[in-house]
Amino acid sequence: MTARITTVHTLDVRFPTSRELDGSDAMNPDPDYSAAYVVVSTDDPDGHEGHGFAFTIGRGNEVQTAAIETIGSMLVGRPLDTTLEALGPLWIELVHDSQLRWLGPEKGVIHMAISAVVNALWDLRAKRAGLPLWQLLAGLTPEEIVDLVDFRYLTDALTRDEALAILRAAEPGRAEREATLRAQGYPGYTTTPGWLGYDDEKLRRLCREAVADGFTQIKLKVGADLDDDLRRMRIARETVGPDIRIAVDANQRWDVGAAIDWVRALTAFDPWWVEEPTSPDDVLGLAAIARGIAPVKVATGEHVANRVVFKQLLQTGALSYLQIDAARVGGVNENVAILLLAAKFGVPVCPHAGGVGLCELVQHLSMFDFIAVSGSMDDRVIEYVDHLHEHFVAPVVVRDGRYLVPTAPGAGAEMRPQTLAAYRFPDGAVWAGEPQRSAL
Amino acid sequence: MTARITTVHTLDVRFPTSRELDGSDAMNPDPDYSAAYVVVSTDDPDGHEGHGFAFTIGRGNEVQTAAIETIGSMLVGRPLDTTLEALGPLWIELVHDSQLRWLGPEKGVIHMAISAVVNALWDLRAKRAGLPLWQLLAGLTPEEIVDLVDFRYLTDALTRDEALAILRAAEPGRAEREATLRAQGYPGYTTTPGWLGYDDEKLRRLCREAVADGFTQIKLKVGADLDDDLRRMRIARETVGPDIRIAVDANQRWDVGAAIDWVRALTAFDPWWVEEPTSPDDVLGLAAIARGIAPVKVATGEHVANRVVFKQLLQTGALSYLQIDAARVGGVNENVAILLLAAKFGVPVCPHAGGVGLCELVQHLSMFDFIAVSGSMDDRVIEYVDHLHEHFVAPVVVRDGRYLVPTAPGAGAEMRPQTLAAYRFPDGAVWAGEPQRSAL
Repeated sequence: MTARITTVHTLDVRFPTSRELDGSDAMNPDPDYSAAYVVVSTDDPDGHEGHGFAFTIGRGNEVQTAAIETIGSMLVGRPLDTTLEALGPLWIELVHDSQLRWLGPEKGVIHMAISAVVNALWDLRAKRAGLPLWQLLAGLTPEEIVDLVDFRYLTDALTRDEALAILRAAEPGRAEREATLRAQGYPGYTTTPGWLGYDDEKLRRLCREAVADGFTQIKLKVGADLDDDLRRMRIARETVGPDIRIAVDANQRWDVGAAIDWVRALTAFDPWWVEEPTSPDDVLGLAAIARGIAPVKVATGEHVANRVVFKQLLQTGALSYLQIDAARVGGVNENVAILLLAAKFGVPVCPHAGGVGLCELVQHLSMFDFIAVSGSMDDRVIEYVDHLHEHFVAPVVVRDGRYLVPTAPGAGAEMRPQTLAAYRFPDGAVWAGEPQRSAL
Repeated sequence: MTARITTVHTLDVRFPTSRELDGSDAMNPDPDYSAAYVVVSTDDPDGHEGHGFAFTIGRGNEVQTAAIETIGSMLVGRPLDTTLEALGPLWIELVHDSQLRWLGPEKGVIHMAISAVVNALWDLRAKRAGLPLWQLLAGLTPEEIVDLVDFRYLTDALTRDEALAILRAAEPGRAEREATLRAQGYPGYTTTPGWLGYDDEKLRRLCREAVADGFTQIKLKVGADLDDDLRRMRIARETVGPDIRIAVDANQRWDVGAAIDWVRALTAFDPWWVEEPTSPDDVLGLAAIARGIAPVKVATGEHVANRVVFKQLLQTGALSYLQIDAARVGGVNENVAILLLAAKFGVPVCPHAGGVGLCELVQHLSMFDFIAVSGSMDDRVIEYVDHLHEHFVAPVVVRDGRYLVPTAPGAGAEMRPQTLAAYRFPDGAVWAGEPQRSAL
């Protein structure tokens, strides 16, 4: 009997992070980190489930969950093996659905829903293969990898043949790089010290701890008040010394002119990159800012809607660092496209993470990139924030400022059943005001 | 007692247009035109309601409706007068809500939901004023108009002072232009002949009828098959003669290189503009296409997510015609911003319409633009499609190829109660497979 996808179940899961001001920045004063969560189940006797989610920061998670329900319903009844073997064509089918694409196209809620579902299918495929996602991806042939990519709207910057050439050039060194990765892990940087809601003493303490923990880069949120930013940058620079990179993150706070002025005002403290200085849609504006603040660099990506916008950010030279997000663009497949674009343009990928579960997801993509695409870890770091990892079946492991390779089969999205029960909104114990308890 | 907003009610309304292939194009073979519909009610004794909707083409309308429910819930309990008097600050509050903006930001489902709700509030305000929306807007002072606009992310292209100067320059001629508009109406063009699903004989007949009806521009869908497009363009050009403009619309079908090649292949039949030749997110790609196909022009806008993308399309010179859509960007307020941007760059606005109700909505914006912003109807046309107008309380009136000024108070979105009952999905009579009937 052919095994099939039998159910696609969604859950609205929210964490009350606003109670501690974790995650507070100039645009997001009080986020409640949330996951519009999806579980793909099958009738295969192996019992594996695919888990995925879209990350949001609270209100609206119910809308995101509704969108995942709609996308997920398109999978029910499909044969399991042939579906998982053909995730490239499936991605195209979902993204270019002639009616659903009106809701984007390829952006916002409907695209993030595709991300959640696609990532859940990759989780399922990896579990069935008994491999962590990075290893599954890094074991595909160059032809299998390009078959994951939709080259529509990309061919003026990257053709299938060019992508194949990039992947083939990286093939000979794969085994050696995998060994390096297993031995050394992948560099991270930490955003833990820099949330706007923290007072100076907490900032100073967390900066010290970051250096002690082996990180060579930290990040500070900026953009609410220039005097505060100058004071906090001074504290951070004094605490970490001259050799630690300090990135700053404005979370889209500024217009083009204001971004240039503000970043220039901070240059005495040697900011390494400025992240999201303005609207993530403003390709020309980001390029103008990059020219205006050099040698300080621009990094952007966590809110970039899709590969078409990333293509342009690369074409204009706006980005010095490209920040993929595992759960905003259309999941693994589109991120493979973006990694290939970045490799073509020679721009290092430094993923956005943090939130809830984004570290768990995105590490796989950077490790795949190192082994099979760019072939480099130079000048590359994965964001790390030390929140909420305890909710995952296989939390990330960061030692001496580096992500250790995950070994559990899957894509990293699976939350513990106790978490899914307790944090379900609005009826989980955490939200009902009751003491947190394990319901499963 | 202060009157308040008491309920914001949503409805999933769908029309089975796919049964006749009305609306078929290269990317949308079988749309079911739909409205995620919203009604804002109050406890004011005047009994007025505000109606609005987001337009979709079928599947996913339930997601759009859920998003409107979320945005709408933010209005319940607010005082009526002060809310309607301050739609500029309200727009900013809704769009920049720190948690909800994660779902966009300013794009896709969540932004279209804001559009529906904001337009419903404008409908309510106009009804309470006893004025059609165009007249309400055209009666505001320049200061009141710029107060509707969020200049965030625009100031590198358009400042508040520049916008004020544009509006003040147009002030002296307002009364005269209003008289002209009342006497002559506003020019339209028709897309009715050109849907891909129609056979050649129907195309020829509808082209003849369009000219007989007084239209000076028609539009054909293209992009599925070049030989078909060449044959259909030949038929259309032979039927309408050399003096009628024929626009073509590819609905995002092509990559940059393919767009240039395809449009060049059609030049023997003198296409006036090519609409949506590629991804609406590809500012650089659209600019490259514009350079590659001149003197054929590029028109785009129905899927442009927000004013930030329009800003760049104007900055690069990609657009010869800017196609606002009444219900994709954040409603009236954001379209006022876009009209001001277009005026600054001297680009004519030729709105996207059709669908269901988009003609009814967008005519108000073009007429406001003529009276109070650009001051011109030259080289400007509003799209017209002769579908589904019978469902509206105040349907558009088009005579001799021109939109006559609407006189009913409101913004045009209100559907007949019989329609809302019969076409409600999935339980209305039309969808239950029963004979269509008036349920109210």
